[in-house]
This record gives sequence, structure tokens and C-alpha cells, in this order.
Amino acid sequence: MQTALHVYNSKNRQVEKFEPLNAPFVGMYVCGPTVYSEVHIGNVRTFTSFDLIYRYLLHLGYKVRYVRNITDVGHLLDDTSEDKISKKARLENIEPMEVVQRYTVDFHQTMGRFNALPPSIEPTATGHLIEQIELVQTIIDRGLAYESNGSVYFDVAAYSKQENYGELSGRNVDELMSNTRDLDGQSDKRNPADFALWKKAEPQHIMKWNSPWGLGFPGWHLECSVMSTKYLGEQFDIHGGGMDLKFPHHECEIAQNKAGYQKDPVKYWLHTNMLTFNGRKMAKSEGTGITPRELMDGDHPLLTQAYSPMTIRFFMLQAHYRSTLDFSNEALQAAEKGLKRLMTAYNTIEELPASANSTVSVEELKEKLYAAMNDDFNSPIAIAHLFEAVKWINLVKDGKERLTSDDIAALNTLMAHMIFDVLGLKDEASDDSSEKIDGLMQFVLRLRQEAKANKDYAMSDEIRNQLKALGFEIKDGKEGTTYTIL
Amino acid sequence: MQTALHVYNSKNRQVEKFEPLNAPFVGMYVCGPTVYSEVHIGNVRTFTSFDLIYRYLLHLGYKVRYVRNITDVGHLLDDTSEDKISKKARLENIEPMEVVQRYTVDFHQTMGRFNALPPSIEPTATGHLIEQIELVQTIIDRGLAYESNGSVYFDVAAYSKQENYGELSGRNVDELMSNTRDLDGQSDKRNPADFALWKKAEPQHIMKWNSPWGLGFPGWHLECSVMSTKYLGEQFDIHGGGMDLKFPHHECEIAQNKAGYQKDPVKYWLHTNMLTFNGRKMAKSEGTGITPRELMDGDHPLLTQAYSPMTIRFFMLQAHYRSTLDFSNEALQAAEKGLKRLMTAYNTIEELPASANSTVSVEELKEKLYAAMNDDFNSPIAIAHLFEAVKWINLVKDGKERLTSDDIAALNTLMAHMIFDVLGLKDEASDDSSEKIDGLMQFVLRLRQEAKANKDYAMSDEIRNQLKALGFEIKDGKEGTTYTIL
Repeated sequence: MQTALHVYNSKNRQVEKFEPLNAPFVGMYVCGPTVYSEVHIGNVRTFTSFDLIYRYLLHLGYKVRYVRNITDVGHLLDDTSEDKISKKARLENIEPMEVVQRYTVDFHQTMGRFNALPPSIEPTATGHLIEQIELVQTIIDRGLAYESNGSVYFDVAAYSKQENYGELSGRNVDELMSNTRDLDGQSDKRNPADFALWKKAEPQHIMKWNSPWGLGFPGWHLECSVMSTKYLGEQFDIHGGGMDLKFPHHECEIAQNKAGYQKDPVKYWLHTNMLTFNGRKMAKSEGTGITPRELMDGDHPLLTQAYSPMTIRFFMLQAHYRSTLDFSNEALQAAEKGLKRLMTAYNTIEELPASANSTVSVEELKEKLYAAMNDDFNSPIAIAHLFEAVKWINLVKDGKERLTSDDIAALNTLMAHMIFDVLGLKDEASDDSSEKIDGLMQFVLRLRQEAKANKDYAMSDEIRNQLKALGFEIKDGKEGTTYTIL
Repeated sequence: MQTALHVYNSKNRQVEKFEPLNAPFVGMYVCGPTVYSEVHIGNVRTFTSFDLIYRYLLHLGYKVRYVRNITDVGHLLDDTSEDKISKKARLENIEPMEVVQRYTVDFHQTMGRFNALPPSIEPTATGHLIEQIELVQTIIDRGLAYESNGSVYFDVAAYSKQENYGELSGRNVDELMSNTRDLDGQSDKRNPADFALWKKAEPQHIMKWNSPWGLGFPGWHLECSVMSTKYLGEQFDIHGGGMDLKFPHHECEIAQNKAGYQKDPVKYWLHTNMLTFNGRKMAKSEGTGITPRELMDGDHPLLTQAYSPMTIRFFMLQAHYRSTLDFSNEALQAAEKGLKRLMTAYNTIEELPASANSTVSVEELKEKLYAAMNDDFNSPIAIAHLFEAVKWINLVKDGKERLTSDDIAALNTLMAHMIFDVLGLKDEASDDSSEKIDGLMQFVLRLRQEAKANKDYAMSDEIRNQLKALGFEIKDGKEGTTYTIL
């Protein structure tokens, strides 16, 4: 018998039974990437976690509308700094939307390699400016925001008289209002805890639009309130994101929604935990960290080899989404071996000899697997149970345990459901080939590098052309040469 | 000596020398898909043609900003019908943006399989509503549009007093104004030739936004004026699209730009021709036609087999983009064979025996290839010249013609440039990992052979050791070097 799905709700800090507002429909909103650089592996973990959640909800039969946004304008580090995309565009001397396009394409390719399903809707901040301006106006009209020198700020003090600002993150609003440093340029604010709904664009700012408050651009928190409401309604089931977004981003989202639509928007808040590498923090904003491409190419001083997308996905799913996940070569290599063992065993099931009776219980395994997944999507426990099954499969193969043909069929279906549908893994049958290809490629690229160093351009061109004919596109960059398989 | 690039300019109905407004920069705008169904093969042909043009311009060294839009709202069959995306959403009982997402993902996957490069910017109509509303207001302010019952129409009669409406398509404005049937519901218009800049949304319409004229949505032609201007400036070099877009779409675009920005926006208008199958018209709007997926799967009553993406691409490039292209099983099968012959010959070049002199001229071939491409991107002629080269390659191989080693190298580079960079083809035979490994190994072993011939034993040893580390054991024998995978 299956237990019912329970999820840990960050809002109430407890595990709760999952009861959608309008079953069998489930609305899920996840904060997507800001497309100004290659996606960070920490973000990939977050999106992989929600891919697991999306897949499991679909597997249970829910009709899920999964909305994950693309932030293509307005992501400021704080209210005084430059827009991340504008900054990148300025540094590279290109149009911001070229930055957006380059990294949106890259993001989709990367998530595709990790076998993540595309969300149902992928709205952009620039695609919802009118709606954002309307929400700002509504919040002003309700007396909870004010215009100041061409910008509009959310009035945390006024809001706090009616609502609990800090309810999600557990921050104390009085401390927030008194403790925040008085940053230069924030003098437009009445209170340091106030946050921007709309920012006045300075003359050099590239991305800007006309609004009732003059030329400007939306604050980063605003888009998520607007787009989740537009596509999922004023109240919906699941809102997800990395736990670093709890404050201020999600706290501000709740405040904006309550101020604008007068509804508590989200029933279940789900937050994923952070990544470390060899126990040390990885953070894009600090310029450290390994990109997914580097992990897949083995191209980073900390890496002793390349890891396939499915190895990385499997490795991630071997930790619960609410636990920190520590990357290391040893752990990734163990995941690589484990995944191979799992796939080999799965591929063996159909060839198992059938017996008149079973000495192991597929039904019990099934209960354990669903119990694990129903316990807040506990994929590591589910995977541990899958490895129990791997043991049996090998024992049945050796004649030391027995399964009936019905149980073999049931085991086959169960394993396929869990491995492919829910965990979203693929059999990288040619993973050995892909390592060989990568090894050869790294070597050939090194030879080309040497040829270039020796000014033997005929040779370096020949290598490029030969590789192109073989279906490899190579790209020279600051960090060296990378390749993609066409 | 190369001739300069010339293009056929639909605007002047003649071939003109290509001189960008601000070389080496080139701005190119191409009308992209309306994402309410799988992309039609006719659209794939258009986008493949502009991919060829984009690639050739890049190959010539131009810095191209290539903008191709996604129409995600506002595409009406005529001014009275329903929005295509809203209609699909209503029929399928889903949110319009789910339709948009589904077919945007599908479109990108399809174009990826055809090896089309992503454009530099891929803007959406919903991402530019503020800009569209602003342009409508500007045109009203200039007295060339009028509001009528919540919609805004372009005033063709007023515009025609200053400008030549019909200049691109060759239509006669007086005929347009008198001949058009007086359709039901168009009574808001002063004149049947007027077209919608902004449409009032009926209550059941899903996609709508607030505007100075009430709730509504932009007319289909408007987005292209706005987005081309935003990303390429008020005047830019190339505007492309299928020739079915000449009227009314592109004619209206020109009128909007001249009315709003007072500039003739486009220097070169390029239009691609239509597709037929077995001589009969294929058209998405008529519910007939074969999808790219059906062609690639062979899953259509008219198809006798599946065709690979590169076969289809090669087939398309064997017709000039301004000619109609007739699909048939026979023609596709011929393209399949031709492509294989071309790739086989290309892969043979490196193994050709070098002679002291050449009996065929690589330089002349190069001139012919560039002359063809410079003649309005004449890929079929270029491909015909490539097949001349195939003939030679086979004759040189058989000892019936001769090439020096320099000419062999030059031929290799030239063919690689044309086949891979310009025509954008891939060798699908090397899609398979084992073939990729073999291709790389043959190449590395050849480098080792060359190192030995040059008495660079340090290099040849290094190659051997590196290959061993990667799991390849190599063995030198009388017939050359062979390898085994350990």
C-alpha cells in the first residue's frame, strides 16, 4: 500500500501532506536562470531537483503546469548595482539581447544534456513589462509603495503594519529596518529595508522602457509575482527555487503578491540546498565554481576526469534536494560505477530465468520505492532500494534467489518507471566511447595548440577542418579550446 | 580573383552589389515562425536559405547581427479572424503560452537537426508590447492611423498621399482600396485596404493587454517593424522572409516604418520561393503539407522512405533560394546519394597521392565556387562545382589526374570551407561514436606517420603513449598502422 505524498514546506518548516488546491491540476513555479553567463552547476542541481519533482508528480497522474522563468532583465545584485545582463553586454560591447540569446540557447542545451524536461511555460521578464507596471501601480494605489526620484520602492514599514514581512525567511522586520547599511545611492528609499519595484534608468543604461514613472526597468523580484500569477493564478500549489532565494527574493515576492493581489500566493514553498566541492563553497557570484561544461569535459584543475551528464545527474539524485551536496572526484567516480551497475542490472532483468515461486518480494520493493519518493521526493533512499534490487537481480541470475515470470515482468516495469520516468536517467550505453572520444579530442586539441604555438597554421587549420568533417565544432576562447559534437 | 557579392533585391527587382550600410557590420532581420504548430517544411526551407546566407556572410568576414523573431501573439489570417495561438489554445483547452512553449522548443530542435545556426537575437512579439504601443501612438500622432471602436488602423489613403504603398509588392493602391471585399466586421475601417495596428480584444480573447485604446493585442505586422528597429536600427541591410510575406506583411512593415520612423528601413529585401511536392502546392494554412518530422521519419503516405536531416538540407540547397523547389522521393533519394558521394570524396582528399605538378586547377575551382556564392548565394551552382571536384578527386586517386601536395592541402581547405562552413552540412556517417573514434584515430595515426616521416620521433612516441593511456594499442605493419581498443 502506498503512503500519500508529503512535502517539506519551507513556509511552515514542516513536512505536510501534499493536497493540491485543485487536483488533479498542480501549478508549480520555479525561479529560472538569469541568462548572462553559463548556468552554474548549483542552478543545474536546483533545476534537476525540480525536474525530479515534476516527473514524479506527472508519474502520480497529476496534470502539472510547470512554469520556469527566464530572467532577461532586472537582476541586480542589490538595488544600487548594475543590471547583470546590461553589464555583460557593456563589457562585451554587444546588445543585451544577444547576451540573453547566447545563454538561453546554452542553458537549454545544457538542461537537455541532463535530460531535464522542458517546463510547460518559460516566460521572460521582458515579455511581461506591461503586467509588471500594472502591479507596481496597484501596490502604489494600495499605499504600500511610493515613487521616489523616478524609482518605485516597496514600503516595508507600511506593509508590516498589516502583514508579517519575514514570514518565509524568518527574518525580523525591525532588525531589517534598522540594521541594513545605508548604502550610497539608496537615499531615495524611506527605509533601508525597502526594495525596488521599478528602477529609474540612468542615461547609460541600455535596457529601459517608458512607464508612468519615466524611463526605467523592473526590479528583479517583481517578474516572479507577475508571471506566477498570470499563468498559475493568484494562489497556486508549489513555488520552488534555491534556498539562497528565500531572502530577499521569495520574501519580496510574497509581500508583492499580498500587497497587489491580497492573497497568500503559495501553498507549498520548496527550497533546494547548496553545492560544495571538496567541502568548499561554489558560487558563481564569487567567480569560483565549476561549470556543467567543465564537468562534462573534465576541463578544470579540480577535476581528474570528465563525467557524463547522466553520471552527474545520478550523483545529484543520490543526495536529497534539501541536503547540501558535496562534489568530489571520488564521489563522482563512485556514481559513475553505481550507475553502470544499475543499468547493467536493469538490462539483465529480461534475461532472468523464471521460477515457479519467488523468494524475494517485488511488491515490497515497490512499496519501499514509493514510500521513499512520497517522503518529500527522497531520491537517495529510492536509489538505495534500487541497489537492493540490483543485488537480487544478480542473485536470481546466479540461481541463488528466484522470481516468477510475473514478478520478473513487474520488476521490469517498476525499475523502468523509477529509473527512466521518475529519476529521468538514460542508458549512456556508449559512455565508454564518449570518454574515448573526449580523450582523443583533448589530445588532438593539444596538438593543435602546439602547432599554433609553433606558428604552423597550415597544421592547425588542417586539424580544425578534419575535426569539422568528423562532426566536431571547435571554439577557441580565453580559457582554451572547447569542442561540441555536432 | 573573386567577384564581389551581389544579391537580388526584391525591392528594385534587380541584382545589386552588396554594400552594407556600415561594413563590416551587417544587420539582417528574418521573419520567424508563428509558434502554434510544428514548423512547416516550407518555413524550414526559408530558414535554411537564410542560414546559408548568414553562414556565407560570416564566412566572408562580416560581423552579422541576425535577428529572427518568434511570433507568439497577434498572427491573424486577416483582420477579422482569431489569433492563431489563441485558437489553438482554445481548441486544446490550455494556456496560449503553453502552445508557444511547446512549438518553440520543437522549432529549435528541428532547426538544430538541420544544422541551422541560432540567430543572434530571437525576440518575441509579447516581449515588445510597450514598444509596439509606442509605435502605434507615433503613427496616430503623425495622422497616419486612427482609433476606431477600440482598435487602431493604419490609414492607407492618408499614407498614400506621401508614400507609395505597394512599392515592394507592386500592388496598385487604388485597386487595393476599391477591390477588397467588404468583409463583415471590418466596418471599423475607413477603407478596406487599411490594416490593424492594434486590435480590440473581445471578452473571450485570452491574450490581451491594456493600452491607451483599451484591452487589446498588437496587429501581426507591427512586431517586425518594432523589433527590427530596436535591434538593427531604423535602417538596416537585409530583410528576409518567404515570398508569401511580401504582401501584405512586408508591405505593411515598410509603411509602418516610414510612417513611424520616417525612414525607408531596408536596403536589401530578400525573398525565398515556395515548395511543392510532386508538383503540387504544400501549404500549412491549407492543412496539407508534410512536416519535417514526417520527412525525417518517413511517416507520410507520400514518402517511400525516411530522409536524414542532412539529405533534406542538401536537397534544399540544390535549388536556388529564389526558385521553387519540388520535393519528390526520387529527387530526395538522388540527394541522399549525391551527399554520400560528396562526403566520401571529401574524406578521400587527405589520402590522395601527391605529384610534382597539378593537372587540374584548385585555384580555378575556388574562383568558380566563390563566383557562384557571390551571385546571389547560388548554392546549386556551387554544389555543381563541388561535384566537378569530386570527379577530379576520384581521377587523382586513380592516377588519371595529378595534384601537388600544396594543391591537395588547398583543395582540402576549400572543400571544408564550402561544405561545412558555408553549406552547413555535416558528415552524418560520423554521427556514430565508433565511426567518430575511428575517424579521430585515423587522423591521429596519420599525424604520427607524418612525424615519423619528418624524423620527429619524440612526437611519434608521444602519440603512441598518449593513445595507450586512452586505451588504444597501436601496431605498425607493412600495410600501415592498425589499432585495437584495449
